[in-house]
Amino acid sequence: MNRIDHDLAYILKFENIAWYEQGVVNILDRRIYPMQVQYVKCHTHFEVAQAIRDMVTQSEGPYLAAAMGMVLAMFTACKRGVKDISAYLADAASVLCSARPTTSAQMRQIVDGACDIAEQKLNNNVHSEEIIEALFQYALHYISNNYKRYTRIGEALSDLIPHNGLILTQCFGGTIVGTMLRACKKQEKQVKIYCAETRPYYQGARLTASVAYDMEFDVTVICDNMPAYTIQEKNIDVFTSASDVITMDGHIINKVGTFQTALACNYFGVPYYCTGTPDITHKDISTITIEERDPQYVTKSLDTKITMDGVGGYYPAFDITPPELCTGIVTDKGIFRPSQIKEYVQ
Amino acid sequence: MNRIDHDLAYILKFENIAWYEQGVVNILDRRIYPMQVQYVKCHTHFEVAQAIRDMVTQSEGPYLAAAMGMVLAMFTACKRGVKDISAYLADAASVLCSARPTTSAQMRQIVDGACDIAEQKLNNNVHSEEIIEALFQYALHYISNNYKRYTRIGEALSDLIPHNGLILTQCFGGTIVGTMLRACKKQEKQVKIYCAETRPYYQGARLTASVAYDMEFDVTVICDNMPAYTIQEKNIDVFTSASDVITMDGHIINKVGTFQTALACNYFGVPYYCTGTPDITHKDISTITIEERDPQYVTKSLDTKITMDGVGGYYPAFDITPPELCTGIVTDKGIFRPSQIKEYVQ
Repeated sequence: MNRIDHDLAYILKFENIAWYEQGVVNILDRRIYPMQVQYVKCHTHFEVAQAIRDMVTQSEGPYLAAAMGMVLAMFTACKRGVKDISAYLADAASVLCSARPTTSAQMRQIVDGACDIAEQKLNNNVHSEEIIEALFQYALHYISNNYKRYTRIGEALSDLIPHNGLILTQCFGGTIVGTMLRACKKQEKQVKIYCAETRPYYQGARLTASVAYDMEFDVTVICDNMPAYTIQEKNIDVFTSASDVITMDGHIINKVGTFQTALACNYFGVPYYCTGTPDITHKDISTITIEERDPQYVTKSLDTKITMDGVGGYYPAFDITPPELCTGIVTDKGIFRPSQIKEYVQ
Repeated sequence: MNRIDHDLAYILKFENIAWYEQGVVNILDRRIYPMQVQYVKCHTHFEVAQAIRDMVTQSEGPYLAAAMGMVLAMFTACKRGVKDISAYLADAASVLCSARPTTSAQMRQIVDGACDIAEQKLNNNVHSEEIIEALFQYALHYISNNYKRYTRIGEALSDLIPHNGLILTQCFGGTIVGTMLRACKKQEKQVKIYCAETRPYYQGARLTASVAYDMEFDVTVICDNMPAYTIQEKNIDVFTSASDVITMDGHIINKVGTFQTALACNYFGVPYYCTGTPDITHKDISTITIEERDPQYVTKSLDTKITMDGVGGYYPAFDITPPELCTGIVTDKGIFRPSQIKEYVQ
């Protein structure tokens, strides 16, 4: 098997993210993994959109799910004998696209690409089975291309980690955690991973740690109040995180907790490397709105209430790390100082 | 009622900490409060010692429980017609004292005080009922005296908080949270409280937030990855915590997380006030050992496993905040700069 997802952890393999097969899209439920390994079975593209909306998958997941959702929409259209398949697919594209409003631009690109392929084949009277297969290959091509980019980023990140190095992570860095570790393995670096658990969803404990363990690394989870002491006591070599947005002046918006861990790194002179690309729609943080989520996630843990009724909760999902607290932004075009990240787009 | 614990929250009232009544010591189970309000009923001083060992109560609790355990031991000795009551009490003192080895010096003082009172009354042939009552009054006197000291500290702390101030807390500051809030109320300060939840035990979410809510304050819980962003976004006025040990050179050993929150305060110029007294047995941090607890507490939340089997956990219970990150140590003798905390004992 020569697929780009080989040697990666279970949850990073394509078929465990979102996968079309015989009229169904299966999406691994990352909300409960690894406590339960369950797939949400979607029989229509509406169900795929709902699964995306319900956060069944995250990181790379929603994009692949949307692409697979288009395969499913094509299957449904044929099965039901829909006359205007193009119109049906256009509707499906809109439904899938609107499932995650904040990232709809990228989502739009993916589903529109699927529509274009179908349109062309329909015009050439290609058999519907073949169109389904073409859309499936399109989904695979999309994710493979992303994985190639992540592989380059992961390799660049791995180059920054010393042999026998200790890596501290924040939240779930998606596929890049996997590609970084795969590159470390290739370079025979015996690295150890410390993962902050990432309340309230525990993505660090559930996803990042599972990826590292699956890939046979020594991995240890800490609570979110422990990064500073762990950096000090264990002599962490590198702190790394992904990013949700990087502004053109080098501010990093990422899962809440990144900022205070970056502060601790700065105090101890430990490098903090972030991965991502600058967002040209954000010149600086003046256009950034930090999403506040339902306070109930904070006043509960795994559905159990941990506070008295009447006690409030505050759940800012992200925080903002200023450029001077980040050592470098690792991209597919090399490493940039946050203050020089503008050069990425030039 | 003119008791020193009036106007304080439910869990801070003497009878809700540990209370002797008719041959039983009732101890509020702080491990599950406020999800469940349950008392562990101890019928012997052995059961009291076991409850202390099992962390049923914490902060001030074990000391009052030990004092109440001595009342119970006296009751048992009389009921069973024990001949050498003094010897029986001396044994009980040792049993209670050994329940928490790290704080046994203070524990020893309390139980020995009870033995002395009993001894004196036994020598004067005082009726056993009266001795039981005297030991009960001794326990009350001990806790009342502590509460008086906490009231002075709470008042001094309240003086440092602006009107309409926002207070960020770490873990559970024990009775001082209550006395601080009571003093704020007296001064008619409309303060709001943000409590870091304090994984893995959630003392901040369960205990500190409940104390504030019981005392009718506006209180909000945040996860342990949110203090830095909350300080920035909500314009926190004061960060405050208790301390487990303060070294003679002003290092603060407290529940893990204190250090990284102090770093964030320092970054934003927000004062951090710690409460406690210096420990003359620790000249500096060279004699400090940070207790590591069972990693299973980290890889679980409320008894539910959150990681894959094979993923490790690291649970340092405390961290060390250097003197320059603390604005002042609030004591019953006034406020000291950490670098001058030596003067407390002079």
